[in-house]
Amino acid sequence: MDSNICVIADVTADPENADQLGSILRKFAEICRTEPGCLSYDVFRSVEQAERFVSIETYVDAGAFAAHRDSEHFRKVGAGELLPLVVSRNVRTFTGSEPVPPTS
Amino acid sequence: MDSNICVIADVTADPENADQLGSILRKFAEICRTEPGCLSYDVFRSVEQAERFVSIETYVDAGAFAAHRDSEHFRKVGAGELLPLVVSRNVRTFTGSEPVPPTS
Repeated sequence: MDSNICVIADVTADPENADQLGSILRKFAEICRTEPGCLSYDVFRSVEQAERFVSIETYVDAGAFAAHRDSEHFRKVGAGELLPLVVSRNVRTFTGSEPVPPTS
Repeated sequence: MDSNICVIADVTADPENADQLGSILRKFAEICRTEPGCLSYDVFRSVEQAERFVSIETYVDAGAFAAHRDSEHFRKVGAGELLPLVVSRNVRTFTGSEPVPPTS
């Protein structure tokens, strides 16, 4: 990972909007993966709280993450379509993962 | 977060074992949450690849993460029940999240 940025974006919808949020997150992920600085963008749904989703994103560097947040699709889909369905949100960013020894 | 450890553990099963892996991951999460040094342990399933899961875990410090990996339930459930169903696995650990400015 080194200078890569890893983002964990945790979002929760009202239960009645959860499936719709999942669909838009999936569409948003497909668009974000086309960004030149985006290495991965994966969307997961909680197995215990169906209204909760997490996006795990990696970018080549901080500039690529800034470009993501400054993109047209972030404004149009992220802020325009996703955020109105989100009732709580927590975004964490990390740099430099550390190796974990394999489990024997 | 500061000195907290954040773990992203990405695991994939064969499609025919995916539901079973999800059930065991859910059980494992419940046990792990009782560890004194575990702050959170959440399991999510990919919205695009149903055989892929991710656990997002936070521990108070590196010692708490080491205690997790040295626990009886890690050996018994993690290594004994989960790993046999896992065909690929990627564990990343991070320290110190960085703040992300809110989206306007």
